Amino acid sequence: MERWASNDLLVGPLISTDLSLDTERSNVRVTYQGSPGTVIEAMVLKAFPNCIAVPHKRSEGALEAVESSLADKAVLTIESSSIGSFHQSYDLLLSHNLQIVQEVQTDVELCLLALPGVQKDDLQTIFSHPQAYVWAPALDFAQCEYSLSNLGVSKKNVDHGAAGAEIISKQNLRDAGVIGSAQSAELYRLNILECNFQDASPNVTRYLVLARTANIPSEYEQYKTSIVFGLEEGPGILHKALVAFWKRDLNLTKIESRPNRGKPMRTLGTEKQFNYIFYVDFEASVAEIPAQNALKELEEIASFLRVLGCYPSTTI
Amino acid sequence: MERWASNDLLVGPLISTDLSLDTERSNVRVTYQGSPGTVIEAMVLKAFPNCIAVPHKRSEGALEAVESSLADKAVLTIESSSIGSFHQSYDLLLSHNLQIVQEVQTDVELCLLALPGVQKDDLQTIFSHPQAYVWAPALDFAQCEYSLSNLGVSKKNVDHGAAGAEIISKQNLRDAGVIGSAQSAELYRLNILECNFQDASPNVTRYLVLARTANIPSEYEQYKTSIVFGLEEGPGILHKALVAFWKRDLNLTKIESRPNRGKPMRTLGTEKQFNYIFYVDFEASVAEIPAQNALKELEEIASFLRVLGCYPSTTI
Repeated sequence: MERWASNDLLVGPLISTDLSLDTERSNVRVTYQGSPGTVIEAMVLKAFPNCIAVPHKRSEGALEAVESSLADKAVLTIESSSIGSFHQSYDLLLSHNLQIVQEVQTDVELCLLALPGVQKDDLQTIFSHPQAYVWAPALDFAQCEYSLSNLGVSKKNVDHGAAGAEIISKQNLRDAGVIGSAQSAELYRLNILECNFQDASPNVTRYLVLARTANIPSEYEQYKTSIVFGLEEGPGILHKALVAFWKRDLNLTKIESRPNRGKPMRTLGTEKQFNYIFYVDFEASVAEIPAQNALKELEEIASFLRVLGCYPSTTI
Repeated sequence: MERWASNDLLVGPLISTDLSLDTERSNVRVTYQGSPGTVIEAMVLKAFPNCIAVPHKRSEGALEAVESSLADKAVLTIESSSIGSFHQSYDLLLSHNLQIVQEVQTDVELCLLALPGVQKDDLQTIFSHPQAYVWAPALDFAQCEYSLSNLGVSKKNVDHGAAGAEIISKQNLRDAGVIGSAQSAELYRLNILECNFQDASPNVTRYLVLARTANIPSEYEQYKTSIVFGLEEGPGILHKALVAFWKRDLNLTKIESRPNRGKPMRTLGTEKQFNYIFYVDFEASVAEIPAQNALKELEEIASFLRVLGCYPSTTI
């Protein structure tokens, strides 16, 4: 395991060979949005034990590094059981030209951390991890809202690029705590005041691993497929789209609708209605005939259709 | 029109009569999450011209004021064509005991504001409107992301309870701008440097108006109905639920899935899967027989079902 400094303009050497399916090689570079010691870094290092984990300030930077071959894989948080879908991630799947090659599901345990010797009663302020992008909510806070209100302290979002744990450690703040992973306690020499500090337990998070090259699925593997499509207006059109899957007993695990950013509204008579695009996950590989037929049927009525990836799902 | 100071513990006199359907009375109190001069206040004053608009720091406070009869209506932002669904609002519909009585759709125009005499080239910093709750993204920033990056200034979220416009005005900041409504320019004596500053135009936002008492719908009125339901696990169960509407030609305008916060995960064999609840809007009144039959059919397979409201939709 190796950590890189936070850097949106990665200056490491170019990799000429595609390592996207080679998770065992020690120099596989996996990008993520966050900073060392965050929950997502812990997940990256657990899922890819021999990787070089490369933090980026923005998710776009993490994805662009893979697109431009500066890194091999990017990890994107897509859904949390306590918060719901991460909509920015859905938009990024569409705006970037990468393939989903793996889904990783893990139970995220958040801890309340402070300097050694500091007790809960000493805490006046709780820092959140930095949020580099306006759309990203203060995730740690949102997941620990109830626990925090019980503690009765003030909450503070820290500036970009400096983790709360780092601030506490460097400035020797004895009246401040931070919510983070057990790994960040180790990294910044903090004590864990409370484990499982999040409100909901289990607190499962789904991550998607993206790479430049798609998996080659076989019909004998248990894969999931993710697609995104648009529909022309018309009565019951979404029903027609979904029936293509249901009538072939293809189980849909997720339907997510987002405004079509290119054309967010449509006019019906004098009425303006929202114009959506749909993200659907189903349990099958595109190597299977029923999945291929469902996609062909959908293509006939869709204004556009893109397969975002066909991938195995792992729980770690 | 009358403005109240921001206050989560509303101390005004109790209203003994229910004014929830009487929008013309000058003392109808309409609560919202935000502060004077924000886009949502402008919408409240446009939709209810004679109301007392009561700002709250948190959406929960705005809803609780109506539940406890301290106010008559609450306005909740539910969806924006440029950003998507406001998930916290969906959770609040479930956790509070209020009825949707109206939907209001409006084209939101955001302006770039600064002190009189200040030019775009003078700007070093842009303030966003205060965001009182960690789940609420810096909406104005998110809607103007592209325009802001063209301007090349630093962005700053201001602290709770003090609008950026107010800070600029009071501190006479000549190198700072703020994104806001034309109303906030008037309120804080700022100049409008640019209109339609948001990235997407039109930038339509849907608001829901909540009250203690449900509308009494008739089958002759064009109403929408919003419901929320849970489903037991089983193959194609969501299909069965939605077919109840489609086979009766009831047009679904929105399907939103959220993790079930009470039980966010379900176990299938050794696998943990996300456990969702579903929010559905359809174009019919519950006074209509097909809608009643669809709801009865859904009730047979749903683990719970609640009608959130039956209401007219207005564009202003």
